[in-house]
Amino acid sequence: MPSLRLALAQTNPVVGDIAGNSEQIFAAAIRAHNAGADIFAVGEMALTGYPIEDLAARPSFLAEAHGAVTLLAERLAAAGLGALVVIVGHPDGPFEARLAGNAHAPTAIAQNCASVLQHGNVQARYAKHHLPNYSVFDEYRIFIPGDELLVIRIRGCDVALVICEDLWRDGGPVGRVLKADAGLLIVINASPFERDKSEVRLPLVTRRAVESDTAVAYVNIVGGQDDLVFDGDSVVVDSAGGILARAPQFVEHLLLADVEVELATDIPLIENVARIELDSPLRVKPQLSSDITAPAEPLEQVWNALVLGLRDYVGKNRFRSVVLGLSGGIDSAVVAVLAADAIGASKVYCVSMPSRYSSDHSRYDADDLAERVGVPYETQAISELVLPFESQLGVTGLAAENLQARVRGVILMALSNAHGHLVLTTGNKSELAVGYSTIYGDSVGGFAPIKDVPKTMVWELARWRNSLAEIRGETPPIPENSISKPPSAELRPDQADQDSLPPYEILDGILEAYITRALSATEVVALGFDSEIVGEITELVDRAEWKRRQGAIGPKISGMAFGRDRRLPITFRPSTVEVSALL
Amino acid sequence: MPSLRLALAQTNPVVGDIAGNSEQIFAAAIRAHNAGADIFAVGEMALTGYPIEDLAARPSFLAEAHGAVTLLAERLAAAGLGALVVIVGHPDGPFEARLAGNAHAPTAIAQNCASVLQHGNVQARYAKHHLPNYSVFDEYRIFIPGDELLVIRIRGCDVALVICEDLWRDGGPVGRVLKADAGLLIVINASPFERDKSEVRLPLVTRRAVESDTAVAYVNIVGGQDDLVFDGDSVVVDSAGGILARAPQFVEHLLLADVEVELATDIPLIENVARIELDSPLRVKPQLSSDITAPAEPLEQVWNALVLGLRDYVGKNRFRSVVLGLSGGIDSAVVAVLAADAIGASKVYCVSMPSRYSSDHSRYDADDLAERVGVPYETQAISELVLPFESQLGVTGLAAENLQARVRGVILMALSNAHGHLVLTTGNKSELAVGYSTIYGDSVGGFAPIKDVPKTMVWELARWRNSLAEIRGETPPIPENSISKPPSAELRPDQADQDSLPPYEILDGILEAYITRALSATEVVALGFDSEIVGEITELVDRAEWKRRQGAIGPKISGMAFGRDRRLPITFRPSTVEVSALL
Repeated sequence: MPSLRLALAQTNPVVGDIAGNSEQIFAAAIRAHNAGADIFAVGEMALTGYPIEDLAARPSFLAEAHGAVTLLAERLAAAGLGALVVIVGHPDGPFEARLAGNAHAPTAIAQNCASVLQHGNVQARYAKHHLPNYSVFDEYRIFIPGDELLVIRIRGCDVALVICEDLWRDGGPVGRVLKADAGLLIVINASPFERDKSEVRLPLVTRRAVESDTAVAYVNIVGGQDDLVFDGDSVVVDSAGGILARAPQFVEHLLLADVEVELATDIPLIENVARIELDSPLRVKPQLSSDITAPAEPLEQVWNALVLGLRDYVGKNRFRSVVLGLSGGIDSAVVAVLAADAIGASKVYCVSMPSRYSSDHSRYDADDLAERVGVPYETQAISELVLPFESQLGVTGLAAENLQARVRGVILMALSNAHGHLVLTTGNKSELAVGYSTIYGDSVGGFAPIKDVPKTMVWELARWRNSLAEIRGETPPIPENSISKPPSAELRPDQADQDSLPPYEILDGILEAYITRALSATEVVALGFDSEIVGEITELVDRAEWKRRQGAIGPKISGMAFGRDRRLPITFRPSTVEVSALL
Repeated sequence: MPSLRLALAQTNPVVGDIAGNSEQIFAAAIRAHNAGADIFAVGEMALTGYPIEDLAARPSFLAEAHGAVTLLAERLAAAGLGALVVIVGHPDGPFEARLAGNAHAPTAIAQNCASVLQHGNVQARYAKHHLPNYSVFDEYRIFIPGDELLVIRIRGCDVALVICEDLWRDGGPVGRVLKADAGLLIVINASPFERDKSEVRLPLVTRRAVESDTAVAYVNIVGGQDDLVFDGDSVVVDSAGGILARAPQFVEHLLLADVEVELATDIPLIENVARIELDSPLRVKPQLSSDITAPAEPLEQVWNALVLGLRDYVGKNRFRSVVLGLSGGIDSAVVAVLAADAIGASKVYCVSMPSRYSSDHSRYDADDLAERVGVPYETQAISELVLPFESQLGVTGLAAENLQARVRGVILMALSNAHGHLVLTTGNKSELAVGYSTIYGDSVGGFAPIKDVPKTMVWELARWRNSLAEIRGETPPIPENSISKPPSAELRPDQADQDSLPPYEILDGILEAYITRALSATEVVALGFDSEIVGEITELVDRAEWKRRQGAIGPKISGMAFGRDRRLPITFRPSTVEVSALL
């Protein structure tokens, strides 16, 4: 059987920066060529970044992307890479008059495409058939689905090309590819990280390979883009589903693999297939060493996803530093360490803002963390700032508690305005769920690194990160006391989270059922939780929607994150009358 | 020709409150029956409110809606309304196993339905074919499209039933209804208000009537739901397109009309049509008086939309009062008057928060407005609150300016926490577009009444509202000085908006082109605007996305509002290298 050398580049594009992303692709193509690749592929929308959202509705943006593909083809040929078969993901359009394939979104003017470049030209183009329109995806809003398959004959082998969701749908284009009897299926992807997703993706790739007796090459982008983290994890499997090569997660990488591909025989008669034939001269190739990286353990994956999401938000938005409040508690400690891992401790400005209710141990724990991590650190006591409000406004109780949190927010924003720091907000998913935070107070910030991490997992991550330090012979960054002490907002004397909330193990169990699994309160109770607690918690979750809507974005790591993953009305009332009472 | 008496009820549902909404429908049905109606219809999703967003993914919610439809049918019959043909809009499901019609959103388990109730039973059900998935609509995300038409024979007349978007698509179900030769088309809708939309809707209804020689009855819901305002404007036209009845906008209304409907003849052979025949006894009917309301002039429509959006946000979320800062400027003046019109002046708490930079005229204009409108009013000077921050943090310049705005935000939130007021934020669309506001400062609030109103229209609305008062013999509520003086944030001495921004006439022109029409900067310049100014403004707009994402919701009145209508990444860079420079 002929052997084709594949090079899959997991690049880290910046949404919008077509010229910069094109440069990344070009640089990776050179490396691929030098490594003897016959075919070079990058991820879905690697040219523009993903998701481009309503940029896809701008004719000028589409025209720029279209032009950049042509230019890339020319540039590759001019650099002596004309023979390399290059597959690049990009939006194409505008298609106002020519196509009208998305009747439910008549304003869509673009397609989600993969172009095949060789010898300075665009040789073929495939448009994604299946446009995900669930979870965080809005592709049916902005794209017109394609309806034609693409099969490329290279050295007598048939190579089919599809895009991301096309692989997932049974009976979709991949089903037709099987009938087209291709020897290799290349799938370009922009598939965001979720906990346990690598346990779903690889079996899918393997299953597609086995059921079609076809090798499969899966290439994903990498990097943080707003609330999504693309983890890479590109892979090549042979026609028996065996792993030939697998890229590491969360880093840019060029994955090389030699794939044996069956020679094409008869062409099956199936409709709507574009077939092209490309030359591909045999070259003397350098020897390949094996490149198979196993994914890290689950907590390490989550940590790495959070670090990458934070690093790229900072870098792609051109911040040079971050600032956050250190309370001595576990949330701000974990965020500080994540930030230090992401951009270096010297750029993580930490502020302790004790009030008259702050315990000595809180101040000590904050000081301790700052010293362990080596961050720039200052103290801004808030009492003298809060008192004038209290006396002028005469507020007490909850209003006075919130004053403290809001004064802290004002301090962090003043430091941000004065020095250009990005403010990080340290709320976790459990707090955001029940609204256990002060809006315009501790919620202040442009990025929320642990907003999709339940409190119980915040503790797990802290323990995992400390044990990593121990393995490395470093000082564990997070004070043991911050991990082990009972959590408290310290907005009044002797306050503890568990005065207002059930234990976090129970809270997180209820939230998982109500939010991630979208069960009703009745169904959550049926899982064994106390009905009164479930009633209170689900009401808190519903009522906090307005706060969440005004919250900072942060990296999605779960199957159901707050934000565009879970779209619910603010104005919402459960039935005011028992339905049965109407009879 | 037989005559059918139609009753169209534009009800104001609360999303989620199935029992309460059902009660509204029941009460309107009784009135319709007493008025001699043969057919009674309410709007799309009148049972659950609209849009229900991801509530459609909750099996328990769908089951409750399904049960409520059955219950409503039984209850109507028990009340002696069994013979009335009742058409009600609701979601139906869950349809996990039975249907798989939405391949791009495999998690959708619901349909957007209209049920026909008579004699205590659900006689038929139609599922919407065309699911809008553009602008503010996400229906393809949550619904499975229907594929069967419904024609109901009543007294020998064929009545077809479709839902909202079905009417708009050429070649959609309405096209097939023409072939089915129905004598009357009933369309139930949840169609949000936009400026000038009534100038599009009525011609569409008229065109459908004329092209099919069929009478058309169009019923819309009414009321505010988060960022949408449904304006009603239900209408019945005869088969020549002549208006038989038209409901007022922005209020609940029962619209009655007698429609002459041709007797059905042969049944055309078209596929996928469910046909049912219902009895409808002839009754002695009270005489109908003409009920045709012409829409108000454009500025009055906008004002009424803003008032309704605000009133319903307050009422449906069970607030009893609002609070806002009065600066003496035009934005807060207009918001205060809108709020007074919406919920009564006595519930609109206004706070003047002068700083050392506030001009005497600003304080006077704020006092003057409070007196004219008759709102509860207090003054909270901010100097003594700002100074401690300035001296402790040592900040100057922009950071110090923002401190003032943030201290005001803290005051408003403290008053909200202490007294339960909803905080209104007074930013206009022009400011939000360019980020000319202080996040966690003047942007603080749960609802933003004029967030979709450009500055130039804020002035127009002020003048219009004052002239309305003059016509009514009332004191114009807005001080002339607030309208005529040059706008200023007054965060430093002698500051004026036009120090940082072009004149608002020019700014709003650029924003209309860049945002609403989604033109590129180059295309905006081609309209005749200065290229340097366009470059600065479009960059400001792009960079302010993170602030807008954390902003309060407010009523959409334009064709392109900020929020779910315009979905753009925060992390976004225009190309960093000129594309041509790559060669």
